[in-house]
Amino acid sequence: MKELEERILKDGRALSPEILKVDSFLNHQLDCTLLKHIGEEFARLFKDEGITRVLTIEASGIAAAVFTGLALDVPVTFAKKSKSLNVGNDVLTSRVFSFTYQKEYTITVSRNYIKPDDTVLIVDDFLANGRACQGLIDLCDQVGARVAGIGICVEKAFQPGGQELREEGYRVESLAKIKAMDEGYIEFE
Amino acid sequence: MKELEERILKDGRALSPEILKVDSFLNHQLDCTLLKHIGEEFARLFKDEGITRVLTIEASGIAAAVFTGLALDVPVTFAKKSKSLNVGNDVLTSRVFSFTYQKEYTITVSRNYIKPDDTVLIVDDFLANGRACQGLIDLCDQVGARVAGIGICVEKAFQPGGQELREEGYRVESLAKIKAMDEGYIEFE
Repeated sequence: MKELEERILKDGRALSPEILKVDSFLNHQLDCTLLKHIGEEFARLFKDEGITRVLTIEASGIAAAVFTGLALDVPVTFAKKSKSLNVGNDVLTSRVFSFTYQKEYTITVSRNYIKPDDTVLIVDDFLANGRACQGLIDLCDQVGARVAGIGICVEKAFQPGGQELREEGYRVESLAKIKAMDEGYIEFE
Repeated sequence: MKELEERILKDGRALSPEILKVDSFLNHQLDCTLLKHIGEEFARLFKDEGITRVLTIEASGIAAAVFTGLALDVPVTFAKKSKSLNVGNDVLTSRVFSFTYQKEYTITVSRNYIKPDDTVLIVDDFLANGRACQGLIDLCDQVGARVAGIGICVEKAFQPGGQELREEGYRVESLAKIKAMDEGYIEFE
């Protein structure tokens, strides 16, 4: 997606071969018009998949997910990273290892909001090692929901998550795929 | 906002005089069309305030905030509840007590994403004791940004947060104000 790639080149900051800051428009300060276009692009890419639900994870996946859900006219569910009193007890959980924080955490979704007959589009802001995506897929597998696709804003294609998911047969669509980067330098695939 | 009140009566569940579950459409599963209408209503209410930024708090404030930001054509900033490696060190923080979790936590925003010359609209899903709002106001006060208003989806008007904020001079607009509730019973103001 040209608009996102251009924005990354303009306002993203590669701090090292692994760390890309896009917090001025994608995951701390949010450019709502760009995120709307991202949601519409995911909807266009997956429009023939019979999607019934968008699934994401709090917090930085939510903005892209709601614009996708709006464009596809389906509900969005976001998995919670901490145990919330308000979710109730009838929940699905999965353990996810975060490389960013170097620790494992539990993601939680109420069983009411992923159904066995759902056809799910997973949406997230970043794909690197793919652990968050694998956790969301695990939640879907637990109830028998079908994962029809994975929509990613920025894929670090030099890390293994995307390739692993594609080898497992998932359709992964990344709107910007970074082949390599370093301080002051970003190269797309 | 009639659409939100009707939805609360239809799909919300009052579990006690204090606990209202709206997780089927507002803060776990998200009805994107309803949230778009909520954002447009906040934009309509505050359109003459010269808003330059919407400020919310992860995670359940984000959906309403991005639709508000889109309608007002301004960026959204969401405060983080946990210290993120990706935020950097030049941050504003405030301590917030959560009655839901009975503990204090720190909210964090990069100094890049609340500016001294900002006119801020705070948006959140719930207002009860008002501590999250007070924390967001504190972040704005630290840099001298002006808080021009507070847009709330659901206010528990029988708890003191809304009244305190109004007495402090803030313009608080709540789209659904609950006067009283109990198991199976919800009364709006």
